[in-house]
Amino acid sequence: MTEFSEAAKIGLSPSGLEVVLRQVGAERYHNRHPYHQRMVNGDLTRGELQAWALNRYCYQAMIPRKDAIILARSEDPALRAAWRLRIEDHDGEDGWSGGIAKWLHLATSLGLDADAVKSERWALPATRFAVGAYYSFCAERPLLQAVASSLTELFSPVIISERVPAMLARYPYITEDTLAYFRKRPEQASRDSDFALAYAKKHAVTPELQQSVIDALVFKCDLLWAMLDALQHAYGEPGNVPPGAFCPEEAG
Amino acid sequence: MTEFSEAAKIGLSPSGLEVVLRQVGAERYHNRHPYHQRMVNGDLTRGELQAWALNRYCYQAMIPRKDAIILARSEDPALRAAWRLRIEDHDGEDGWSGGIAKWLHLATSLGLDADAVKSERWALPATRFAVGAYYSFCAERPLLQAVASSLTELFSPVIISERVPAMLARYPYITEDTLAYFRKRPEQASRDSDFALAYAKKHAVTPELQQSVIDALVFKCDLLWAMLDALQHAYGEPGNVPPGAFCPEEAG
Repeated sequence: MTEFSEAAKIGLSPSGLEVVLRQVGAERYHNRHPYHQRMVNGDLTRGELQAWALNRYCYQAMIPRKDAIILARSEDPALRAAWRLRIEDHDGEDGWSGGIAKWLHLATSLGLDADAVKSERWALPATRFAVGAYYSFCAERPLLQAVASSLTELFSPVIISERVPAMLARYPYITEDTLAYFRKRPEQASRDSDFALAYAKKHAVTPELQQSVIDALVFKCDLLWAMLDALQHAYGEPGNVPPGAFCPEEAG
Repeated sequence: MTEFSEAAKIGLSPSGLEVVLRQVGAERYHNRHPYHQRMVNGDLTRGELQAWALNRYCYQAMIPRKDAIILARSEDPALRAAWRLRIEDHDGEDGWSGGIAKWLHLATSLGLDADAVKSERWALPATRFAVGAYYSFCAERPLLQAVASSLTELFSPVIISERVPAMLARYPYITEDTLAYFRKRPEQASRDSDFALAYAKKHAVTPELQQSVIDALVFKCDLLWAMLDALQHAYGEPGNVPPGAFCPEEAG
C-alpha cells in the first residue's frame, strides 16, 4: 500500500501539497524504472528500443484525445484556452506536424514501418490497457483529478535531460534528428505543468480533494511504470513476447 | 500481428466460425502461460499464489458489473434472462454468497487478510488496467462483441481441470475447501458459453461481424494473458514488485 494514501489527512497548505506531489515523483516516476536505467546506460538492444518506441507511440497518439476530453468537461474558458495548447503541440497544424508526427519519426528512424506503428497492431496488450485506463481516468474522474493526472509532466524535463544525451552517446544509430520530438518538450511540459500545478493547488481546498490530487498523480506514475514493466517483461529476456505482439526480428 | 486478423475475410459458416474461435483458445488461452504452467507444476511460492489470488480477485469482483452493463445494453429479454444468471452466480443471494465470496475465501485460505483483498489496494496497476479495459470493452463495443468477449469460458473447464487436481496434489496447504470456488464453475461456464457461442454464431452474419467476434475473443485472451504476464514479472523474480503493490512478506 502506498505511503501517500493518507498524505493529506490533516490538510496541507498549497505549497505543502506541492511538496507531497514532488515527493510522489521523486519516489515513483518512471525515471527510476530499470528499463529507463538500461536505456540511459546503453544496455537496450535495437529491438528493445523499437519496442519502446512503438508502444510509447500508442500513448503519444492518445494524449490529444485525453486532453480533448478534459477540454470537453471544463466549463472554465481559461482552463480550456490553456489546455488547448497541449492538443496543438501534439497534433500540429494539420494533425501530422506536431508531437505525434515527431514520435512516429523517432520510431521510423529506429527502423520501424510507419504504417505498422500507426496501426498499433504490434503494441503489447498491457500498453493498450494502460493507455485506455488513462483516457478513462480523464473522462470519468472529477475534473480536478483529470488535470492532476497530467502532473507527471513536472518531472519530464528531468527524464528527458537524462535520456537524450545518454541515447546520443550510447547508441551509434541514434542522432539528434531521431530525437527531434524531445527538443521542444521540456519547455512545453514546464508551461503545461506550471498551469496544472497552479490549478491543482488552487482547487484542492479540502484534505479530501488534496488526497484525490495526490492519488491521481500516483495513478499516473503507476501507469507509466506499468508500461515499462510490460516492456521489460516482454523484451528483457527471451521467450516472453505475448501472442501477436512485436517481435524484433519482424521489424521492417 | 495475429494470425486471426483476417480469419473471416471470406465469410464462414456458423460452425466454421466456431472452429476459428476454438482455434483462438487453443493458441492464446492463458492455460498456455508460463505462470499457469508453474502453478500446475507446483513451482509457485505461497507468495506467488497469494499474489495470483488477490489480483484475480479484482477480476472476479468486476465480472458482475461487466455482465450488468451487457444486460443494460440488451433490448432482448431472452438474452437478459440468460445473462442474469451470471450475475447471480457471482453475487449469490445477498452479494456475498456467490463466486466473489468463494474467491475471497480462496484468498483468505492462502493467508491473506479479507479487507486487504477486498480493498484491492495491493493489486498490481497492470491488473487494474486490464480489468478496467474489460469493463470498458463491454460498455463501449457493439453488444455482439461484448457477448463474444465472454467466450473464454469455452476453455475454462479445461484450465480448471488442470488447475484443481494439480493444486491439491502439489501444495500441501491447499485443500478442497480452499478451492471451493471452482466446484460449480465448469457447469456454470459450460451453460454460459453454450449460450454465448450460440448467440455469436446466430448474430455474426457477415464476414465483418464474424471478424469482430474473433477479435473480441483475441482481446479477452490477450487480457487474461497480460494479467499473468504482470504477475510473472512482478513476482517471478526478486526486485520487480512495482511501488505500492503486494509484497509477499507483508501478507497478514
